[in-house]
Amino acid sequence: MTSRMLEMTWQKFGEKMRNGAVVILPLGSTEAHGLHLPLGVDVITSTGFAELLAGEINGVMAPPLVYGYKGETGGGPIYTGSIELNAVTLINLVHDVLEELVADGAKKIFIMNGHYENEMFLLEAMDLITRKYPDVKIVESAWWDQVDDELIEQIFDEVPFPGWTVEHAAIAETSLTMYFRPDLVHMDRFVEEEQIRVLNYHVSPLKREIYPSRGAPSTSRSASRKKGELMVGKIMQGFLKVVKEEFR
Amino acid sequence: MTSRMLEMTWQKFGEKMRNGAVVILPLGSTEAHGLHLPLGVDVITSTGFAELLAGEINGVMAPPLVYGYKGETGGGPIYTGSIELNAVTLINLVHDVLEELVADGAKKIFIMNGHYENEMFLLEAMDLITRKYPDVKIVESAWWDQVDDELIEQIFDEVPFPGWTVEHAAIAETSLTMYFRPDLVHMDRFVEEEQIRVLNYHVSPLKREIYPSRGAPSTSRSASRKKGELMVGKIMQGFLKVVKEEFR
Amino acid sequence: MTSRMLEMTWQKFGEKMRNGAVVILPLGSTEAHGLHLPLGVDVITSTGFAELLAGEINGVMAPPLVYGYKGETGGGPIYTGSIELNAVTLINLVHDVLEELVADGAKKIFIMNGHYENEMFLLEAMDLITRKYPDVKIVESAWWDQVDDELIEQIFDEVPFPGWTVEHAAIAETSLTMYFRPDLVHMDRFVEEEQIRVLNYHVSPLKREIYPSRGAPSTSRSASRKKGELMVGKIMQGFLKVVKEEFR
Amino acid sequence: MTSRMLEMTWQKFGEKMRNGAVVILPLGSTEAHGLHLPLGVDVITSTGFAELLAGEINGVMAPPLVYGYKGETGGGPIYTGSIELNAVTLINLVHDVLEELVADGAKKIFIMNGHYENEMFLLEAMDLITRKYPDVKIVESAWWDQVDDELIEQIFDEVPFPGWTVEHAAIAETSLTMYFRPDLVHMDRFVEEEQIRVLNYHVSPLKREIYPSRGAPSTSRSASRKKGELMVGKIMQGFLKVVKEEFR
Amino acid sequence: MTSRMLEMTWQKFGEKMRNGAVVILPLGSTEAHGLHLPLGVDVITSTGFAELLAGEINGVMAPPLVYGYKGETGGGPIYTGSIELNAVTLINLVHDVLEELVADGAKKIFIMNGHYENEMFLLEAMDLITRKYPDVKIVESAWWDQVDDELIEQIFDEVPFPGWTVEHAAIAETSLTMYFRPDLVHMDRFVEEEQIRVLNYHVSPLKREIYPSRGAPSTSRSASRKKGELMVGKIMQGFLKVVKEEFR
Amino acid sequence: MTSRMLEMTWQKFGEKMRNGAVVILPLGSTEAHGLHLPLGVDVITSTGFAELLAGEINGVMAPPLVYGYKGETGGGPIYTGSIELNAVTLINLVHDVLEELVADGAKKIFIMNGHYENEMFLLEAMDLITRKYPDVKIVESAWWDQVDDELIEQIFDEVPFPGWTVEHAAIAETSLTMYFRPDLVHMDRFVEEEQIRVLNYHVSPLKREIYPSRGAPSTSRSASRKKGELMVGKIMQGFLKVVKEEFR
Repeated sequence: MTSRMLEMTWQKFGEKMRNGAVVILPLGSTEAHGLHLPLGVDVITSTGFAELLAGEINGVMAPPLVYGYKGETGGGPIYTGSIELNAVTLINLVHDVLEELVADGAKKIFIMNGHYENEMFLLEAMDLITRKYPDVKIVESAWWDQVDDELIEQIFDEVPFPGWTVEHAAIAETSLTMYFRPDLVHMDRFVEEEQIRVLNYHVSPLKREIYPSRGAPSTSRSASRKKGELMVGKIMQGFLKVVKEEFR
Repeated sequence: MTSRMLEMTWQKFGEKMRNGAVVILPLGSTEAHGLHLPLGVDVITSTGFAELLAGEINGVMAPPLVYGYKGETGGGPIYTGSIELNAVTLINLVHDVLEELVADGAKKIFIMNGHYENEMFLLEAMDLITRKYPDVKIVESAWWDQVDDELIEQIFDEVPFPGWTVEHAAIAETSLTMYFRPDLVHMDRFVEEEQIRVLNYHVSPLKREIYPSRGAPSTSRSASRKKGELMVGKIMQGFLKVVKEEFR
Repeated sequence: MTSRMLEMTWQKFGEKMRNGAVVILPLGSTEAHGLHLPLGVDVITSTGFAELLAGEINGVMAPPLVYGYKGETGGGPIYTGSIELNAVTLINLVHDVLEELVADGAKKIFIMNGHYENEMFLLEAMDLITRKYPDVKIVESAWWDQVDDELIEQIFDEVPFPGWTVEHAAIAETSLTMYFRPDLVHMDRFVEEEQIRVLNYHVSPLKREIYPSRGAPSTSRSASRKKGELMVGKIMQGFLKVVKEEFR
Repeated sequence: MTSRMLEMTWQKFGEKMRNGAVVILPLGSTEAHGLHLPLGVDVITSTGFAELLAGEINGVMAPPLVYGYKGETGGGPIYTGSIELNAVTLINLVHDVLEELVADGAKKIFIMNGHYENEMFLLEAMDLITRKYPDVKIVESAWWDQVDDELIEQIFDEVPFPGWTVEHAAIAETSLTMYFRPDLVHMDRFVEEEQIRVLNYHVSPLKREIYPSRGAPSTSRSASRKKGELMVGKIMQGFLKVVKEEFR
Repeated sequence: MTSRMLEMTWQKFGEKMRNGAVVILPLGSTEAHGLHLPLGVDVITSTGFAELLAGEINGVMAPPLVYGYKGETGGGPIYTGSIELNAVTLINLVHDVLEELVADGAKKIFIMNGHYENEMFLLEAMDLITRKYPDVKIVESAWWDQVDDELIEQIFDEVPFPGWTVEHAAIAETSLTMYFRPDLVHMDRFVEEEQIRVLNYHVSPLKREIYPSRGAPSTSRSASRKKGELMVGKIMQGFLKVVKEEFR
Repeated sequence: MTSRMLEMTWQKFGEKMRNGAVVILPLGSTEAHGLHLPLGVDVITSTGFAELLAGEINGVMAPPLVYGYKGETGGGPIYTGSIELNAVTLINLVHDVLEELVADGAKKIFIMNGHYENEMFLLEAMDLITRKYPDVKIVESAWWDQVDDELIEQIFDEVPFPGWTVEHAAIAETSLTMYFRPDLVHMDRFVEEEQIRVLNYHVSPLKREIYPSRGAPSTSRSASRKKGELMVGKIMQGFLKVVKEEFR
């Protein structure tokens, strides 16, 4: 039984809405992720988790949004292939999709984010919708929100955890992509570069000189499919707890 | 060699742009298509053609836009599962994606539309972009644009061609879905209904009473995978001709 | 008794609204129409039909919107004198006018379109309004929607019907202008040019080379006031039927 | 020789632009003007002056904008028949029309305003355009800007001048309408009411209780076609002086 | 007891709202005011009056908006230091602040304007809000609205009153600033210049040649703190009368 | 010598721009901060730091923006007195102010943020501006960005550091307000409440039940003016380092 909305008939979807199913909306980005990972990492991971979650809770996975907000850590605008939306566009897009889901009877919506910089714009769209439809509840989370200290230690067993802001195309994302789409990971192309210098401020235009030439701001050397599997297991537990808390 | 942008590294994509590759952007909709077809028909067909075309011309298929404008013939708002964008949202979305492709060096863009009602909003986004970047050329087409009279006769061999406006979830779309995703077609669920009454005007709100209860405005009885294959062959010839004409 | 809103007092208009009169809103464009027709053809025809219809059904003709969306077949941007609105502007404009009519008690509104490219943006404005005011009904139609095969044969008695997309400044529009404003038709300035090549795709920027130097994409040689009169009669029957169907 | 753009061919208009002709864009409103004047007073007067001015200076009168901003003195929203645009809509509308005129070669544009409350939104549109196209000059004026003290004394010979804010549907506007469209003035329906109380502040919602039941905030008893003629003469002198000053 | 909202706790503010207190929202501009006055004159005066009024009526002064619309008389764009908002931005900003005040229980709002060119955009925001929340009343006024003929004679005792449009950085504003922030007035830097030529039309771009090189369009020579005090007294009487009339 | 732009003449500001001075734009919020702190904490701290920084580097402090984005940790919408802007409004506001500063010659702009939830919208405005004006550099930082581990230990000497997300109206903010505006801190009103439960996801509408009734999500018991002073000293060192790095 598919949980992908795009593969359902409208009748099947309507039935699920009448039964109070949770709709899970994955969002990613199209963004450079080093030389060893594809542009779609954030789509692959968010869609991967969304589908797993929908399967677990008999929910529906709405079609994914594959373009996201401008990446900063990943250095989006610096590398070709990063296709990034303006803030207003992203807010309106998520707003409209949410409003239509609500119009179709969805009362429980879970936004599965796969790209950090999307977050605040998702919150804005959520707020605009729940002001209009106060009986709807919308949750937003991302896989990294569900990673606890214990898991961090397990993932970063060889190198110290550099903080989430530079964990772009690095051990965690690489391991997850190895789990969901191993065919798209090319560790042979990975070259260790100096880790990006983390600024304690933001600056525009982005400082090209601090971004690595290959697009991976920190090492992914010790990534593995096994770590990916471990992560997926623990993260899914986290998501299920959120769902239980908010949508029981 | 994949032509899916989401599966490429940024380096690979950048190389293609420097070589003048055509970027093909598929757009569909999430819309009711009767009881025998999934909500994603317009995504499946547009993405199907986009990928074939990208393969043929060594192009790049950009990640698909899976939500489209409000369907009229299909009666979008009447059936659950139709998730439709407001006009401004769709224009801005396509605008931003186009602008980012241009920023990455794309000069030849082919928008592969799979949902009729998207068309005018795509043209607006295209116009806004080419006014700003006059050296960029953007083509928009859809599979039905490439269907000639001969092919119509071959598809509509058992029933008369009802005109494109009611060809929703009908013989052509069903045959194409049988080609691209046969696993998602459920002809056993198809029930012949009275064909929708075609109005020679538009009215809002939509007239619920003229829409069929099951969501298929005209028959798909004589659809077949073979017809789908025939269509794909001829339509691809059409697209290739357009590409040759505009992007040689 | 005038049916032009601009010539009524507010009291008269209010009375009509209280009596459930239909408001007819004409929209045209300011667009090149060859050397033999004025820039205002789409305003002249839509206002002409709107006034006739208002007269027949004791309705009110709202003041006309004289600027429309960017013309494609007519090649708007290519010729001086084509003054064209961006999509968002047109949607907002029609939205606001409709909302104010509704605020004044209008429940039956007929948008009389005279410029093909306006259509989808009108539908968007209509949808935005009827979502907010579901007891309001808004119809949109254009004179060409009311032309049946018999009438086409009568108009295109000397040359084959080239399809509506190139019927710009051609036999139908010229005949109608001869009916409504014969003083503005200059057949002596008309020069036969090669018919525009019809593309089975859209491209931006417009291909200047396929547009005729004088701005008339197909012949208007056999236009006549008599044909205009015949058209007006039959088209008015069509509009009256729509009104009867929707607003009785 | 017509100066109405809508009645010209594109070729004629283009010629005028190449010769540096001034484009005059009239704007009015659709707004209640008492029981003795039609809803279109502001369109009639602005278009009347625009056409006269275009005739005098060999200019072009662009098609009029017939819907304006929300009236305050006239009490727009209180009376049926006042169809008023939101600020953003009006700004965008004027912006797009100006930008297209500029794209067609216009360098000298005269906005002929007929509705006071439009003014600031016109200035915004003008500013947005001239920032983008600094070699374009745009003037905005209205007939009341050109009325000097001497003329006020001649118009208000029987009653004192109440100030422009209440000169709505009153002696000046009535006299002008008597000049431009005498057939639309119904002095027999005019009933003297108490003059509106002028507030030295603004309040929203409008205070219904201070607006006269018939919609004429001050007397028009001593209006006459002769006064209208006198006004037109003097005001035209004013406009010609402005044109000479700015567009010589 | 402070009446500045920024200095209150949320509890104190909530209490005031439950007691039906009037919220006073000051708006100014950051705009050149000659060589003898600071950029913040319009903020200083509007905030000054807002705080006095809040004190008198036990109201609340909301935090001031310090950027306003583009100045025309003051010649904003011509002088450095004039930081001016686009119309849409200003409308949205005031709209959001008003809507949040309403959400917090405010039913009586007094917008204290200190920059003439803001006015129409404030009215738009007020209208958008009271359409949505018809039980809310919003008043807008400015100090010059409360100046009567007698006071004008007292202020302009040495020179004739030049009209409000050129009373920028002149006797009235200088006297008021001398009252509210004497430390920021530098009469020693004031140099008498020729008075700006007042146009009876608007033109864009602004005519640099008519603006004085120092930025004071008319004399402030006879300004004094005493005049400021006199003004404040009388103007406050005016504001109190408005409050009594509208918010009793 | 004041560094407050509002207190400068335009001439003085212009001089500073010609000398390459850094403009510092403070942004805060109007938001509930418990019973012991005023609504203006984020304005007080950001303006406080902005003024200090301007003084140190001979910069200019632009007038502060006093309304910010919707607070989540602080629970903005739950408490009266939180006046919060929609995302689009905030982006446009900051965009316009930045663009005007650039128009006046500013090339070095430092946005001093005092409210966490503003951040992403500031980055959007910054990106929109630097795309248009690539020779301008804009930095954004907040005081908490400049707090290092050593300082955290000094501030949180009695209780463990709860993480920045709950450091709202708590020890750090209270200490800073004690430094900048001791008269507005009412520790006597502070009542210890259970610390807010930190969610590892976002949910809309906000969960009222997890917010403390008094509005302080974690303790401020051990706040002191001395800690405030210590913080200001170290944080200023941080800001100066940023300025040196980016604007030397």
